[in-house]
Amino acid sequence: MTKTASVIGLGSMGMGIARTLLAHGWQVTGYDVKSASCDAFRKHGGLTQPTLAASIEDQPVVISVVVNADQTEELLFGSEGIADALPDGGLFFSCATMPPARAEDIAARVEGKGLLYLDAPISGGAAKAATGELTVMASGSQAAFDTASPVLDIIAARVFRLGDKPGKGAAMKMVNQLLAGVHIAAASEAMVLAARLGLDLPQVYEVITASAGNSWMFENRMPHVMEGDYSPLSSVEIFVKDLGIISDMSRELRYASPISAAALQMYLAASANGFGLEDDSAVAKVYAALASVSLPEKKN
Amino acid sequence: MTKTASVIGLGSMGMGIARTLLAHGWQVTGYDVKSASCDAFRKHGGLTQPTLAASIEDQPVVISVVVNADQTEELLFGSEGIADALPDGGLFFSCATMPPARAEDIAARVEGKGLLYLDAPISGGAAKAATGELTVMASGSQAAFDTASPVLDIIAARVFRLGDKPGKGAAMKMVNQLLAGVHIAAASEAMVLAARLGLDLPQVYEVITASAGNSWMFENRMPHVMEGDYSPLSSVEIFVKDLGIISDMSRELRYASPISAAALQMYLAASANGFGLEDDSAVAKVYAALASVSLPEKKN
Repeated sequence: MTKTASVIGLGSMGMGIARTLLAHGWQVTGYDVKSASCDAFRKHGGLTQPTLAASIEDQPVVISVVVNADQTEELLFGSEGIADALPDGGLFFSCATMPPARAEDIAARVEGKGLLYLDAPISGGAAKAATGELTVMASGSQAAFDTASPVLDIIAARVFRLGDKPGKGAAMKMVNQLLAGVHIAAASEAMVLAARLGLDLPQVYEVITASAGNSWMFENRMPHVMEGDYSPLSSVEIFVKDLGIISDMSRELRYASPISAAALQMYLAASANGFGLEDDSAVAKVYAALASVSLPEKKN
Repeated sequence: MTKTASVIGLGSMGMGIARTLLAHGWQVTGYDVKSASCDAFRKHGGLTQPTLAASIEDQPVVISVVVNADQTEELLFGSEGIADALPDGGLFFSCATMPPARAEDIAARVEGKGLLYLDAPISGGAAKAATGELTVMASGSQAAFDTASPVLDIIAARVFRLGDKPGKGAAMKMVNQLLAGVHIAAASEAMVLAARLGLDLPQVYEVITASAGNSWMFENRMPHVMEGDYSPLSSVEIFVKDLGIISDMSRELRYASPISAAALQMYLAASANGFGLEDDSAVAKVYAALASVSLPEKKN
């Protein structure tokens, strides 16, 4: 065990993963297209290199925390792609949320070069990334799991092992994102209706969280609406992306998914109205605008 | 305190309420248009009378457990309506789910006759009705609450007091039903997609119930889908009714509610395919049919 890894993509999730590994005594080389992110990582004790190629040279484990399938494919097979530069038997640990068919395709091409691939979407947000308590929905070969195991032990509170075929991790993540995205929009639809009906919103929150209408997202996100605080924990654009993937997958698979399709429209409207980088609960502001209802404003 | 009440409507909810009161030493006169329900109630120690008028004569508390606003209105003001026959200051305790505007209107007419009205929709299903552990979302005058209090103490595990205006109880119940109905359909949309993607359904259940995509309904209803057991605990027709009320209310209020509208379509399709009296989770069978996916069948 060399305790050495490279983390590509130093956004809030990647930075959290990289710093957690550092805190456990690992030697971590970080890379991001934004030099400010690299500067920040160095201040926290991380290593950086001037180029992507140098960042992954001789690295036995490359953890990819880019955003989507296209970025993953560019990272591996683009003009500066690293797939041919990774050491024989090295592990590509892929955290991006993507359609399962893309994960399967990318994994096959990576494995075709004598490398290991772990399809390992993550869940839990920036806070859990920072504390090493992510949930990982992972699938891949036994060899990929064996190599990834010391990393998983450090960055994750819970690892779901979903079999030996890359793509199953991606599929499970999409099922979760369908529900998460629908539940935030449905919570907003219900909460603004409650406001329109003249109900007291804190009382609605008390009743619903104790009733059969509750969801993890209602309980977690509706306080943002009641406080009028849309500081992003996870943004509207994340669900534009993830329900967009569901929409693409559904069309490809000939799967009729009318509820997530309706929810996607509301996130699109939220983004069109300038809320794209606000908290995903800002979808409530679209419902409020459509109904000409006032929601609570943030107290100073 | 006379410990005397009349319960009108001896379906699974009304029967549970009536029998719980009997078990606490109350003298309960039950009434249902179905004579078989009256026969069953007598076997459990309840009283019955041959007519509706006789069932409510001199009753200080009439608990109405009919299905909707129309039945409530018929019960009170129809050709055999009881509104003029209730004793002065008597309480009409109304459990039906209905649009808040209808509850307000009916309450005003009842109160106009010198009677008390408690707007008291119930939640928890037949099981909680039978054990006296219902959740009641109630609004009404202080006098109505005072008279209803001994009944609430016996039939409910939790009472949310939503103010002194009838209609607030109805409004809160509709907000809960919007979420409950959407969540069952969304759970079905996600679960059948998971099946289409080749995921193992018990593993999906394990992951989702531990993740941000969870809802009370996902956790409670998806075991029915995994077991292929659609024995009705609460039926598809309940959500045809309740999301139908949301649809009517939304149109009346000029409230755009696209997600619950999409969910309603799936319950309508479930009913059209003969699943109306099956468990509400049978909406999953519509998704499965649309996608040509097989769901688990019930083991014998």
